[in-house]
Amino acid sequence: MPQLGLLPGRAWAALLGQLLRPPRVVCLAAARSHSQVAEAVLASQLKPHQEKSNFILKTPKGTRDFSPQQMAVREKILDTIVSCFKRHGAKGLDTPAFELKEMLTEKYGEDSGLIYDLKDQGGEILSLRYDLTVPFARYMAMNKLKKMKRYHVGKVWRRESPTIVQGRYREFCQCDFDIAGDFDPMIPDAECLKIICEILTGLQLGDFLIKVNDRRILDGMFAICGVPESKFRAICSSIDKLDKISWKDVRHEMVTEKGLAPEVADRIGDYVQCHGGLSLVEQMFQDPRLSQSKQALEGLGDLKLLFEYLTLFGIAEKICFDLSLARGLDYYTGVIYEAVLLQTPAPAEEEPLNTFGEKIRTTETQVFVATPQKNFLQERLKLIAELWDAGIKAELLYKNNPKLLTQLHYCENMGIPLVVIIGEQELKEGVIKLRSVATREEVAIKRENIVAEIQKRLFES
Amino acid sequence: MPQLGLLPGRAWAALLGQLLRPPRVVCLAAARSHSQVAEAVLASQLKPHQEKSNFILKTPKGTRDFSPQQMAVREKILDTIVSCFKRHGAKGLDTPAFELKEMLTEKYGEDSGLIYDLKDQGGEILSLRYDLTVPFARYMAMNKLKKMKRYHVGKVWRRESPTIVQGRYREFCQCDFDIAGDFDPMIPDAECLKIICEILTGLQLGDFLIKVNDRRILDGMFAICGVPESKFRAICSSIDKLDKISWKDVRHEMVTEKGLAPEVADRIGDYVQCHGGLSLVEQMFQDPRLSQSKQALEGLGDLKLLFEYLTLFGIAEKICFDLSLARGLDYYTGVIYEAVLLQTPAPAEEEPLNTFGEKIRTTETQVFVATPQKNFLQERLKLIAELWDAGIKAELLYKNNPKLLTQLHYCENMGIPLVVIIGEQELKEGVIKLRSVATREEVAIKRENIVAEIQKRLFES
Repeated sequence: MPQLGLLPGRAWAALLGQLLRPPRVVCLAAARSHSQVAEAVLASQLKPHQEKSNFILKTPKGTRDFSPQQMAVREKILDTIVSCFKRHGAKGLDTPAFELKEMLTEKYGEDSGLIYDLKDQGGEILSLRYDLTVPFARYMAMNKLKKMKRYHVGKVWRRESPTIVQGRYREFCQCDFDIAGDFDPMIPDAECLKIICEILTGLQLGDFLIKVNDRRILDGMFAICGVPESKFRAICSSIDKLDKISWKDVRHEMVTEKGLAPEVADRIGDYVQCHGGLSLVEQMFQDPRLSQSKQALEGLGDLKLLFEYLTLFGIAEKICFDLSLARGLDYYTGVIYEAVLLQTPAPAEEEPLNTFGEKIRTTETQVFVATPQKNFLQERLKLIAELWDAGIKAELLYKNNPKLLTQLHYCENMGIPLVVIIGEQELKEGVIKLRSVATREEVAIKRENIVAEIQKRLFES
Repeated sequence: MPQLGLLPGRAWAALLGQLLRPPRVVCLAAARSHSQVAEAVLASQLKPHQEKSNFILKTPKGTRDFSPQQMAVREKILDTIVSCFKRHGAKGLDTPAFELKEMLTEKYGEDSGLIYDLKDQGGEILSLRYDLTVPFARYMAMNKLKKMKRYHVGKVWRRESPTIVQGRYREFCQCDFDIAGDFDPMIPDAECLKIICEILTGLQLGDFLIKVNDRRILDGMFAICGVPESKFRAICSSIDKLDKISWKDVRHEMVTEKGLAPEVADRIGDYVQCHGGLSLVEQMFQDPRLSQSKQALEGLGDLKLLFEYLTLFGIAEKICFDLSLARGLDYYTGVIYEAVLLQTPAPAEEEPLNTFGEKIRTTETQVFVATPQKNFLQERLKLIAELWDAGIKAELLYKNNPKLLTQLHYCENMGIPLVVIIGEQELKEGVIKLRSVATREEVAIKRENIVAEIQKRLFES
């Protein structure tokens, strides 16, 4: 099967034609005069805070910009995650940021109030997506697909109150991997858990544990404890808070807010404080009350099978059966899981890496084009175009006559490893000076060999 | 300077800590039971169209899903674009999907009405971003930055009427590259044009041309033609439509809707129908009326300098000075540009590649793990975990007892090049069969050498 790059020009153009906007004109927003952006910036800066509208420069509550440093880290994280999804054969999918509001309502239970609605400006009533799962289900249904293994990396929006739930953002990125379809039980679930292990290991976050439970075990437990069926979901959502608030507070919420009898709450308490490995699954099979529930037995049977597959995958010791794991959303019906880090990551700081005396590169520039002389812009431009055309990542200063020291300092600050230097002398001799920023060594290379020499050095490093 | 991958564990964890949500718990939405998603899908599918709410499965007007095929193409496009931005030393940046509404109003002139507002649900008044430029300016101002070369790839939203402007979407992706700061004139602009050339060449879209103009030339032209200054922006926005509607229609709009005197419109018409290379710039310098405008002369001077740099970059023949190029938005003040394809891409079709008998791979799977026998799930699971752990992209069917033919057909359909086959015989002999899907050749490889053999084959192909 031909790869995309091997497609004949016409096929490629046809495909691109589908994606371009508008059909015939390629309008690259990529290009805009620097001076105009500078002016826009200036205009914003000139607007004094105390002006008529009391205008404040900020991002909306609960949202944030990603600075180049944070982007460099995020890119590495997403690379790790997406590579893993692709290693497991997932297809990519993307859906719009908003959906018809009626598509989203009634899907999220108590959390529906956290959905961002768009203003009614005429036409359809829309809301920002709350997760990537409901859009996936909508895509499947719309296209009448019965099975699909897909990944989707994208932003979702939730109007959470940052004062209540510390550390949560109202805009954040989700990385979903789903296997939809009708398969033999627990094989896809085992793969999902394997994926979590691979990703968390790849991210080097330190030791972790994946809690698993089953909604049917929870429901069975609720039933035998005496929770009325109409309260299952509400009680589930209380239990789900056990990783954030204490059992005492959860019990209080269940009794006073959700109207559960205190003795029922206490029976639940006995279970939800249990966690362990396969042996706890076996133990629950023997539990005189829980084993009365057909639902719970089904869930326990699946968990047992799951542990068998996890052992074959070599990850059973990373998995913990935890009866307190509930997950808040209504659409969970079977096995559920959630990973927790066992060590707390170091506290977040403004510029974390400076604490460790390290620097993250925010660009990938490999070569800087410098000159020690005035009026050498033309030579620098000719040279840098040669580098770009050879695929080399290169920069220069946008000045007619920059100082050599300024140029070399820029390289050190930005972590650019190589500098090519062209001046009167070099031009006369038909050479370019190639300088290593780290060692400060300089060698003269014949002009016609400079691209090859740079590529050799970059390949070796 | 250390690369990110070389950071000591603590530094890396600190950085990650900043990006995780909530701080201590890694909640991987990536993992969700397949059966639950299947159920969600089923639930959506079961809801009949004629039910109470008259529920229709669709994406909002003017938006679309990206199918795995389209995603494969888009990934390739964005790779080409982002690689180019990085080759030119740009830093990455990301901003929230919405901004404070007051940040966006008055920035887009006539187009402000196309902004999507969020519903007032208490708190700040918000709107979806209309482009990536104003958020960039806001970021610069907020962080008191004076210069920055950044790229930003992200979605923007505009409430355009698809019936009026054919082929436009209300949600679409912009790829911005901006050089903000105070530099010597035209050096950054020349680089932006070089970038457009590199990207359009890299995308293999066929021949193209980049139109350039300068807002000061336009303003000077308006002044000497007799347009009242208060009407400059409105007339600009009419001129901007010349690539979509005829001069006659633009003239009509200027006279009847914008209230321009007909003889003024005709004077404008003489200019906006001019286009050419550097020689047209020289000619306009000599134009008896246009050379009366100081503004226009400034613009022409910059364009002349720009052409000098473009010649050094070897792209001057791709650039066309076009007096009809206006660009609609208010924030353009200097040089403006826009690329056009000279051939029309083949018409967009539902599955364009089938027309050419070609197939796009929607996954990157390299190896499929198969068995000819029943009850071999355990061996398949052990084997595939080995492949994954070696970084090999591998899949299997989620069935206890799939048929061999079904498994081999899956490989052919999905374009997976290699199959490893394990059965009773292989297990006994301590080998795995390695099969090439294209040639159907099979060889037996010692179990302990299978990973190395696969890696060798993948490296060679």
